[in-house]
Formats: sequence, C-alpha cells, structure tokens
Amino acid sequence: MPTTYIQQRQLVIIGGSIAGMNAAKMVKHADPAIDVLLVEKRAVISYNPCLLPYYIANVMEDASQLIECTAEQAKQEYGIDVYVSHEAMAIYPSQNMVSVLDRETGKEKSLTYDTLLLATGSTPLSPPVPGMNLPNIFQVRTLADGVRLKQYIAEHAPQKAVIIGGGYVGIEMAETCRVLGMDVTILEKLGNIMGTMGDDITEVIEQELRTHRIHVVKDIDVDAFEGVNEQYSYVIADHGKQRFEANLVIIAIGVRPGVALAKGAGIEIGQTGAIAVDQFLRTNIENIYAAGDCTEITHLVSGEKAYAPLATIAAKQGRVVGMNMVNRESCQFDGAIGMIALKVFDLEIARTGLSLMEAKRLGFQAISVTHTSYSREISYPGAKPITIALILDQATDRLLGAEMVGREGVAKRIDIISVALSNQMTLDEMTRLDLCYSPPFSPLWDPILTAIHEAIKKLR
Amino acid sequence: MPTTYIQQRQLVIIGGSIAGMNAAKMVKHADPAIDVLLVEKRAVISYNPCLLPYYIANVMEDASQLIECTAEQAKQEYGIDVYVSHEAMAIYPSQNMVSVLDRETGKEKSLTYDTLLLATGSTPLSPPVPGMNLPNIFQVRTLADGVRLKQYIAEHAPQKAVIIGGGYVGIEMAETCRVLGMDVTILEKLGNIMGTMGDDITEVIEQELRTHRIHVVKDIDVDAFEGVNEQYSYVIADHGKQRFEANLVIIAIGVRPGVALAKGAGIEIGQTGAIAVDQFLRTNIENIYAAGDCTEITHLVSGEKAYAPLATIAAKQGRVVGMNMVNRESCQFDGAIGMIALKVFDLEIARTGLSLMEAKRLGFQAISVTHTSYSREISYPGAKPITIALILDQATDRLLGAEMVGREGVAKRIDIISVALSNQMTLDEMTRLDLCYSPPFSPLWDPILTAIHEAIKKLR
Repeated sequence: MPTTYIQQRQLVIIGGSIAGMNAAKMVKHADPAIDVLLVEKRAVISYNPCLLPYYIANVMEDASQLIECTAEQAKQEYGIDVYVSHEAMAIYPSQNMVSVLDRETGKEKSLTYDTLLLATGSTPLSPPVPGMNLPNIFQVRTLADGVRLKQYIAEHAPQKAVIIGGGYVGIEMAETCRVLGMDVTILEKLGNIMGTMGDDITEVIEQELRTHRIHVVKDIDVDAFEGVNEQYSYVIADHGKQRFEANLVIIAIGVRPGVALAKGAGIEIGQTGAIAVDQFLRTNIENIYAAGDCTEITHLVSGEKAYAPLATIAAKQGRVVGMNMVNRESCQFDGAIGMIALKVFDLEIARTGLSLMEAKRLGFQAISVTHTSYSREISYPGAKPITIALILDQATDRLLGAEMVGREGVAKRIDIISVALSNQMTLDEMTRLDLCYSPPFSPLWDPILTAIHEAIKKLR
Repeated sequence: MPTTYIQQRQLVIIGGSIAGMNAAKMVKHADPAIDVLLVEKRAVISYNPCLLPYYIANVMEDASQLIECTAEQAKQEYGIDVYVSHEAMAIYPSQNMVSVLDRETGKEKSLTYDTLLLATGSTPLSPPVPGMNLPNIFQVRTLADGVRLKQYIAEHAPQKAVIIGGGYVGIEMAETCRVLGMDVTILEKLGNIMGTMGDDITEVIEQELRTHRIHVVKDIDVDAFEGVNEQYSYVIADHGKQRFEANLVIIAIGVRPGVALAKGAGIEIGQTGAIAVDQFLRTNIENIYAAGDCTEITHLVSGEKAYAPLATIAAKQGRVVGMNMVNRESCQFDGAIGMIALKVFDLEIARTGLSLMEAKRLGFQAISVTHTSYSREISYPGAKPITIALILDQATDRLLGAEMVGREGVAKRIDIISVALSNQMTLDEMTRLDLCYSPPFSPLWDPILTAIHEAIKKLR
C-alpha cells in the first residue's frame, strides 16, 4: 500500500466516461463548492463510444467530434479536476483512500475521499482462441481503438473483413466496413443474429444485410486466427472445417463489467458478475457508489437483475448518483427496460423489454405475436412497412416486450412501448393510448395500436 | 311520428363515419350473431376526412383511396347492414325507435332498436357574415366537399386562395393550395395561428409558411364575402378596411358537434355543447350510447370535460362502445390527452396535453419552458433542431402538456410525453424514462429528457 499522501478531495470518481462524467457534472451543478476529482486511466474523457462505427466509416472525419468534453473543458466549464492517464490500482475503504498509478510517470499516488464513485465501465470480451494478438485484429470499444482501426484502414485499404459476432455492434461495424468498400462476413456463434431477438424481425435484418452483400454465417464457432502476414490472416472456424480470409478482423462479441478494482476492495459483485448496487446506486461499502457499465441493473419488466451496458443507462445513472452524492439518497434509479436501437443501412431496428427467448428463460408462459402495418397512412406516399413483434405473457395477458423493424418511424415509436412498460400498463389500457395522428406520420390506428389489437385477439 | 314498421334490428348505429364504423366492426367481431344496421345520411361511409387536404393536393388521385370500406364491403366482409343516404330524423326512446328519411325516395321509415349508437359527428362552423353562399366558398369536411373542391380547382384553376382560419385544417389547406400553385392568404381571427399553441412554436410555423410565401394575417375579423363573378370575390375584413381578392375561399374555423338529433330525444348535452357520456359511452337514456365527434370527452390532464373532435378519438371510442354494446359496460373510455400532429411542408408539429393558455384558463399556475435540441446526435449528418415547449404547473411541479416542432422526429416523439401524461408520471420519474438511443435517431440524451432537465432547473 502506497504511503504518499497527496491531497484531500471530497469526491473522487474513478472513470471519466459517460457515467463518471455525468455524475461529476451533476455534482458540480448541484453544489459547486464540492471538490470533484475525476480519475481516468486513458488519455481522454467523456467521449461517446456509440459514435465509433460512424467515425470509422468517415461519417465523422475527426475523433474530436466524439468528445463531448475535454479534461481542460471539464476544469474550465464545470470546475471538475481531472487526472487523465491515471489508473486506480486499489481502494482502501477503511482509510477512505484510493491508490492511483500515473501511467505517464509510473508513479503511484494516494487519494483520500469522502465519497467515492466507481464508474469503471466494461471491457470487451475476446474469444479464447489462439492468434488474438495478430496485428489485423481489432476491437472497437475505446476512442483509441477507433483511431487505430481507422488509421489501419486508411493505410492498408483492407479488402476482406470478418466480423466476429452478429450483435448490434457487429452489425454496425459490418455496415461500416461495407460502406468503406470491403467484402464483409459476419460469423455468429448462435443460431441467430441480434442476440435473442425473434426470427420475424431478424429475417428482415438478414435480408437487408444480404441486399448489401454482407455475408452472415450462423451457428459457427471460431477456433483460431492464423496470420499469413501483417495484413492477411485466416479465421479458422467450425472445428477447422472452414477458413475465412481476412485483411481485417473485428471482434464484437460483447463486453464484461470492469469489476477488478471493486472486487479487490471487497465490494459486492452481483449474480450477473457486475457490481451490485441499491436503488440509490450505493455499493455494500459505505460512501462508495457505482454507476454505468460496471454495475448491474434491475430489469423493470422481469424484476430480475440484469447486465445492460448501454450509454443511455450510464448517463442516467451518472445523473442519479451525482444527485445522491450531494444530497444523500435523494434520487432513485429503479432500473431499465432493455432498449436497443440501431440503423442498418436503411433499416431501423429497435427492441424494448424482454425478448421471447428471455421471457421463456425467466419462466413466463410467453408467446410472440407479429403484425405488420405502415409508417404512414397507406395511401400517403412513402408509407413503409413496420413489423412489430409483441412478447406476451399468456398467464397474465401482460405485455413483456416488443421488437420492431422498418424503414422509418421505428426508433422513437418503440419508446411509446417502453414508457407503457415502465408504467405497467395493461394491454387493455394500451389500446386506449392517445397517440398523435396525421397521414404523413401514421395510419389512423398507429401500428402499435394495431399490433396490440392483434395481441388481444391472439390471447382471447 | 311515422307509423310504418319496417323491421326489427338489435343494434342501430346512426352515422357511418369513423366512430360508427369502428363500433359496427367491433360488434360484429365480438358477436357475429348480432344484427347491426348502420344508417348514414350521406352516400358513402367509412372514409378518412384527415386525408382530404392530400386528396385535393393530388397526393392521392382518387377519392376511393380515402374510403376504408364501402357499404357493399361492410355487408360482405363484416355482415353489417348499411343504409346510405338515410337521415335519422327523430329518436323515440320510449318506443326504442328511430325514424329515418330515405333521401333518395323521400320516404320515412321507422327502425326499432335494442341498442342505439349515436355517431352523428360534427358539422363545420361558418362565419355569421353575408355572402357565405357564393359559389367559390368551400368547406372541407366531407368527402363530397373534397370532391367538389378538387373539381372546382381542376375546372377553374383559381389563382388566389383565401383561407379563413389558421388552425391545423386551415394550415393544411393553405399548403394544399400553395402546392397547387395558388397565392395563399390565411386570415386568423385571433392573435396566433394554431389555436392556443405557444409563440415559441408558432413562430417556427409562421417562418415556414413565410418561406413558402403563404401570407398570414392575424387579429382580423371577416365582415363579408362579396361576389364579383362565379370565380372571383372579395373577402371584406377588419371592419371594411381590408379587402382580399379570392378565386377560392376555404372556411376552416372549426366544427361543432352534431347534437340536433340527440337534443330532440332528450339526451343530455354537456357543458361543451356536445353529448354527455359516461366512461362506458352511455348517454343519460338507457340503451342509447354515443361516440365520436358528437360527444364530449374528459381531458386526462385537466380532468375537465372538453370537446376534441379528432379521428383518433372517434376510432377508439368506436371500438370501446362496440365492446360495451355487446358486453354491457365491459370497457371504459377514460378520455383523451389532446394530441394534435400535422406536417406543414417540411415541418412536423405536434402538441399534447394542455397549452399554456389553456392551463392558465383552467387556473393552473402554469409556465412554459422551451428548449431546443436535435433529432440526431449533433455530429451525425442530417441532425435537425427540435424545439420543445413544456407546460408546467408551478404549484405541483407537474407536467401539463408539451408542444414540439422540427423537421424530423417530432410526431412520434411527442407520443412519449402523451403516454407519460396518461400515466400521471412526475417530472422526476420522466428524467429516468428509458428511451432508445442510436446516433441516427437521437442525441444520447433524447430531446425530451433534455427539455425535462431544463424544466426541473426552471422550477427549482
């Protein structure tokens, strides 16, 4: 344990990404007199990783466009002190102290805190196979990852890209690579892309990928990566039976919570493997809070703990924990619904609540009812199909979740269902939802209402 | 009172527009054995009047595209008997009888009912001024109105159009006339267009109208219409001080509920002038229900009775009353939120709940907080400003309503607020709404969430 005492800070935040930065800003907004020190192991704070696929695709030219706030701005505009390139190495709760390593000088410092926030985020998963260290294999998690990949593409103009993982990041990166002119193959371990989404929806997505000549291989395990040269390798899969040529491999098989620091300090880890927090985002140790991708949440539909590393959740948790660190337990974070939205070429895809597979796994007598309607009045030009799958509990006639796909009007329309789920509305109440109407925006019966009518028919 | 007894029907519906037709279909869906007779005074049933501006603008070529279901289809597909061109003249509740006039033969018939539904809709208001009978003055309420106006435009190619009324129908018709190449002037009696909407929003709309060279004159009273010839007249306004040339005049100053039949039968009329119904859509007379534009509703935010003649409400009431007519009092219609959405050229406009003016009139200590954010992540191409005005009650920190304007992402986004209002969510609960996010669809903090943060700051 390091002994150098450097300075006393009232509030220390470990992690300067979305949760940490939102918390810091909220604290300073609520009480500018509180000293806030934000410790970030990387060189930059407060960037939005969700923009990485677009940055790499040259939709945004400059990495600075991903940064909401630099360390200098944090100090000048909000009065937040920031240590970048400082990694927290250990927490000593009994002394209210954190030891941090200055990665530039290699020196360790000790920081004392009155209140500590862990916003240590997540780290990408890697397939446990040989060859992961080849120079043409990339992850897309940090801004540095993005800059490195963009540079690699600019320098080597890879022809063939293999994406490992058909979840939403994999699909976004597949589009990015395709837009940049590469031949793209997605290898998905499971029988379906997009995680547990239902077939009615994923078939539409797969069709869109096919239209754009992205090759999807499902039910396939990766065995190894074999380098031929610096920009050329094979992805060996399917027990050695298949070999995919790759100038570029992108790993997008998900993330795990960054909990090493918490574990070392005796902070309770939940059943999902992420830090357990209560509704005030307190850990089991006094004066230590946690927020963002390192924590588990309560799923508002199932009531179960879940791991949902999403930027929107991290942002909200940041605000809530910021308020609580100023005025103890003044604000609750009840949980999240499990929203995902993405654009794939011209397709909008969104989900909320539980998928059919998740619902069944949790023991619900779940069924899925799929209905296709239109984004506008059908006689109004430009009306496009919207397919909605509603996940229902047959035992209680309760709506558990929804999945939606179409070429317009999907992303914000699914929020209607999200708000209804948050409020435990019954299907019957939902039939009477007062949704806006004009022929350019919706049929007279909004697709959501039509889908609910179909669901009620099916249940009765 | 006519004496001819024609036939016995279990269920008679007066009015074959949206409410009546939805009710008829719901009854037949729930119990095909029930005889349903739909009596419609006009020649067609089941068309969507909201499509009229687009039909007249040639967005839809054919009037048949506005008709969801013909009388023949109603019979063949749903087993609904329809009398078109039959006008209900009187109801005799003590005999469970309605007398109807066959407008083609001029003969009256009597129909007995077990259950009667009044879906008598609304009729357009006319300014009480001389000259309303000139041949170039039109209303746009019925399909026949639309056909007549479209034909007039085709035959006479009017150059100058004057729209009386700057509400949403007036604005939609102004766009229609402009798209058809006319010089267009809107004359609005009040100091603002779009009814009671706030200035922050209507300024954006007025700017859009100006960009498209539509002239808006506010605070102006129409005194008279003076015909020069069949296709040329003057609109005399402002106490004779102003004269507007017009080849075409469109009256769009609102509608009043069609209650003459109900009044004659002793059915209670509410304080708004529309038929009073309970939550099951029953009138005060046994076995007589009412739905659609002829009824008043409960405003779900104010709790007060309101008159809201909207297609979406009529459709929902139709379904609810249909269920109740089959299984007595099985389904409630609690009320509506007061949604309006419209497109004006490239602008999307929507409102929900109470406006500032309405809220103040109802005695709330209301304020409005306006905030502008973006439809997409600001660094994502195509991000467009969205301006949101939140109407708040300072006494209770409660959200009362919202108005929104922008070039994309407005119409379905306001539904999020509508659902929150329906569920009496607090502002604080709304800060934690789990809304979907991806850079093409929203900033990380959805504009609604940012606006709510601003509102909370303002209130505290």
